[in-house]
Amino acid sequence: MSEPTKDPVEEITQKTEEVILDEEGKPLSKKALKKLQKEKEKAERKAATAAKLAEEKAARDAANVDFSQDRYGKLPMNQSQARTDTKYEDITHINGGRAGESVVIRARVHTSRATGNKMCFFVFRQGVSTIQGIITADEKTISKPMVKFCVGIPSESIVVVHATISKPVDEVKSCTISDAELAIDKIYVVSEVKERIVFSLEDASRPETDFEQEDSQFVRVNLDTRLNNRVLDLRTTTNNAIFRLQSAVCLLFREFLIEKKFTEIHTPKLIATASEGGSNVFRVSYFKQSAYLAQSPQLYKQMCIAADFGRVFEIAPVFRAEDSNTHRHMTEFVGLDMEMAFNEHYHEVVDVLDEMFVYIFTNLKKRYSVEIEAVKRQYPFEDFEFLPKTLRLKYSEGIQMLRDAGVELGDYDDLSTTNEKLLGKLVKEKYHTDFYILDKFPLAVRPFYTMPDAENPQYSNSYDFFMRGEEIMSGAQRIHDPDFLVERAKEHGVDISTIQPYIDAFKIGAPPHAGGGVGLERVVMLYLALGNIRRTSLFPRDPKRLEP
Amino acid sequence: MSEPTKDPVEEITQKTEEVILDEEGKPLSKKALKKLQKEKEKAERKAATAAKLAEEKAARDAANVDFSQDRYGKLPMNQSQARTDTKYEDITHINGGRAGESVVIRARVHTSRATGNKMCFFVFRQGVSTIQGIITADEKTISKPMVKFCVGIPSESIVVVHATISKPVDEVKSCTISDAELAIDKIYVVSEVKERIVFSLEDASRPETDFEQEDSQFVRVNLDTRLNNRVLDLRTTTNNAIFRLQSAVCLLFREFLIEKKFTEIHTPKLIATASEGGSNVFRVSYFKQSAYLAQSPQLYKQMCIAADFGRVFEIAPVFRAEDSNTHRHMTEFVGLDMEMAFNEHYHEVVDVLDEMFVYIFTNLKKRYSVEIEAVKRQYPFEDFEFLPKTLRLKYSEGIQMLRDAGVELGDYDDLSTTNEKLLGKLVKEKYHTDFYILDKFPLAVRPFYTMPDAENPQYSNSYDFFMRGEEIMSGAQRIHDPDFLVERAKEHGVDISTIQPYIDAFKIGAPPHAGGGVGLERVVMLYLALGNIRRTSLFPRDPKRLEP
Repeated sequence: MSEPTKDPVEEITQKTEEVILDEEGKPLSKKALKKLQKEKEKAERKAATAAKLAEEKAARDAANVDFSQDRYGKLPMNQSQARTDTKYEDITHINGGRAGESVVIRARVHTSRATGNKMCFFVFRQGVSTIQGIITADEKTISKPMVKFCVGIPSESIVVVHATISKPVDEVKSCTISDAELAIDKIYVVSEVKERIVFSLEDASRPETDFEQEDSQFVRVNLDTRLNNRVLDLRTTTNNAIFRLQSAVCLLFREFLIEKKFTEIHTPKLIATASEGGSNVFRVSYFKQSAYLAQSPQLYKQMCIAADFGRVFEIAPVFRAEDSNTHRHMTEFVGLDMEMAFNEHYHEVVDVLDEMFVYIFTNLKKRYSVEIEAVKRQYPFEDFEFLPKTLRLKYSEGIQMLRDAGVELGDYDDLSTTNEKLLGKLVKEKYHTDFYILDKFPLAVRPFYTMPDAENPQYSNSYDFFMRGEEIMSGAQRIHDPDFLVERAKEHGVDISTIQPYIDAFKIGAPPHAGGGVGLERVVMLYLALGNIRRTSLFPRDPKRLEP
Repeated sequence: MSEPTKDPVEEITQKTEEVILDEEGKPLSKKALKKLQKEKEKAERKAATAAKLAEEKAARDAANVDFSQDRYGKLPMNQSQARTDTKYEDITHINGGRAGESVVIRARVHTSRATGNKMCFFVFRQGVSTIQGIITADEKTISKPMVKFCVGIPSESIVVVHATISKPVDEVKSCTISDAELAIDKIYVVSEVKERIVFSLEDASRPETDFEQEDSQFVRVNLDTRLNNRVLDLRTTTNNAIFRLQSAVCLLFREFLIEKKFTEIHTPKLIATASEGGSNVFRVSYFKQSAYLAQSPQLYKQMCIAADFGRVFEIAPVFRAEDSNTHRHMTEFVGLDMEMAFNEHYHEVVDVLDEMFVYIFTNLKKRYSVEIEAVKRQYPFEDFEFLPKTLRLKYSEGIQMLRDAGVELGDYDDLSTTNEKLLGKLVKEKYHTDFYILDKFPLAVRPFYTMPDAENPQYSNSYDFFMRGEEIMSGAQRIHDPDFLVERAKEHGVDISTIQPYIDAFKIGAPPHAGGGVGLERVVMLYLALGNIRRTSLFPRDPKRLEP
């Protein structure tokens, strides 16, 4: 125990009972005593202030120690320093039934909102899924500084959260996980957003219906802004869903064809000559010469048929140097190509293609309804209608339907985009399908390698497949006789020397064959009725866009 | 009934019983009688000859009508004239147990050999399968002209054959179907070879062992000749098998990754800047500006990780403008790329890659043994050895093994191709595996975006995977911190402006991630020990080859 400090004022008071002398030994005057009294009071105030400051400092020290200090913070850059056995939970596996369980998740901070200085609400996001998180300051585990840290985490940062699952009082309507939330025990920033983000994910994810009201105050993120900041844009649940669906279309395309004994091939994209017409082909500097980018795997997939591969498919980029700035053209897109030898009739191939698309559409609906619904929430659309056995119309029948609707057209005229769309509308009204096949196109509007019809050589054994009135696949029986192929190429003004290896492939015997090429992005765009092909291409390329 | 013809000799004989008078009514002299006898014999011979000629002519007439005429011939060009319900048999389904059944097949004439003018032996080919066919002239159904037509069908023509399955006396060793053959009833040419083929498929399919004897008389088709006539070359059962295996590797790669929740992506091949070092990138004329061909999906797949795709893969062409003319370089090849966010340690990703390759190798062996054996028959090789859990060596351990073998190397030196091969040999001797992982490469020999090791910054969190001593995959943890990424890029002399969208992707937060890029053709080449990457590319591209 320390000796009690003598109170200076007490001392003075005591002294006043004595005779207080000055330095020279004389008793102090009243004035002098009054002065002394004032000094005493000043000292008392000073001491009180010091004591208060000391107390405050002690409190501050206590706060600096921060009982939560190990429960939050920014982690050092991950350089794979350690590997623990921690299980990181997928939030889609979290539900109200697991209330009370402790989990560790890693997620984006989708949004956060402080309530006073004691609470903060989060929405955490993993891909297309979101869950609510709450942190509340208390006396023992969660300090106010910890809550303050939480409030300061920028949206889109990535955090690791240790939390306890709890059942919310009301359903959390703003999140995909609505019957559970996370009471945050610990939170660490793995990757911090270092600059202001161009648009919020909330704005980028708003349903189109939000903009329909006249007094809508919402910010609409336009397509160009999205594409300029594509990485941020791709994080929306909608985009996440769109590209999972794109991946699904490829998966189903392959799944079906592999089941049907097709072999996957990879044909060259660098080719020696501008083989399919020189105007819309990209030229490449190739060492000391020039090369070109393949506009399709057409000639090579046919060469594989001549090489006895029987049935082949390829998924690969296709390059078109067309200066088309429309909603459905890109300079680079993904081609889903197939080619198949048949025994007697090209309809054997049309049957396979028909069945393939029905398989794709059926399984998209069956296996990917979550993704389809996610897209629909932002961009509402009517479900894609198709028939178990696809409607097949002859070109001449299509022409007749258009004529009946008042369009003036010759028998062998090509279809304009407008007429294609109108025909799609007429077909939908009459047959209740968004998907149909138009068969027997006029020979004149098809490429040189298209086989003419056996009876009327003004028609050909060729077909287009349509989704919601837009062409998504073009195909035909190809000419497998080399002499006739040369004849037709010449009639089309094709320089034979540029396609010599192709012609040669048929001189050594080739079976009759047919096939088709599908534009992947078009299928996804039209299935989801997204209106612009750029929405279904990760990093779209058009005459004006090469970045990001 | 016609009146029986009077025999002139009989007539004369009868007359000899009477007195034969001359013109003047006098009996004939002996001399005259003798003369008459001679004339009679002459007439007899003449009549016999005439009868024989008439008989022969009748036979010739019968032959010209040809009782087999509907059973063979050249079909008109298939323009899908008709569709019947004919079932075309896959020859792999034909076996001795089905003897007596009638089948229709379409196949190539692989070889044919006449025996006299009454028989012809065929080998018919469908993909990797072959079966013997025999035609024998008889009196009623198969005419000699039909056999002659068969003999005249050029090899590699495509025919439709109606036949009866029969069990051969001896096993047909020269065909893949050895316990059955086809007795030809009808044969029609669908597609006729119109020019002399450059090499026979027999020569192109000869086992390498045939050339080993000193006195080998066989024609060896060299690689350049094969590649110049690639369509013909691809028809060999060996090549058919090689590309089925290539297709299988892609299938297994995807099958595994999709099971592990990866999303398939398609990143652009046309890019605005020469982002990964300008020297070995192809320049493209892009409207009024320039573009470049992506050397890998590296930057874009990482951007997808920053866009919260979590786990992605891509199968796509990769372009390298390197003037390398080696057995393992091409200017265009197929990249099997993957990238994956991890929670704590890049070894989480190495584990996935490890398991993936073990899955691929295991299932190649399990599901594609027919194709592997087909390749082995022509190009014998030792089975590919791998361990259930792949051997992982640290780079420093690899260096030590080489030093122990007498190679002088610094700790942080890069591995030359020769040293890689030697290390592969040492590993095989010590660990009995053709497949292993080398981890923790020196930072200096890796790209700028490689994450340094946490403890020794001269090493990095990067790895190569090797098959038979050659690198087939390169991968690493990538730097996900934008400031550090910029710092490292500058140290590598990379112009930041050329990779701005890539840097920007990390400024808005990105999880730690790692991945790798596999060369498809290398995997197939090394699995089958084929020695030249051009054998595993359909239409290979190198600095000197852009065709066919």
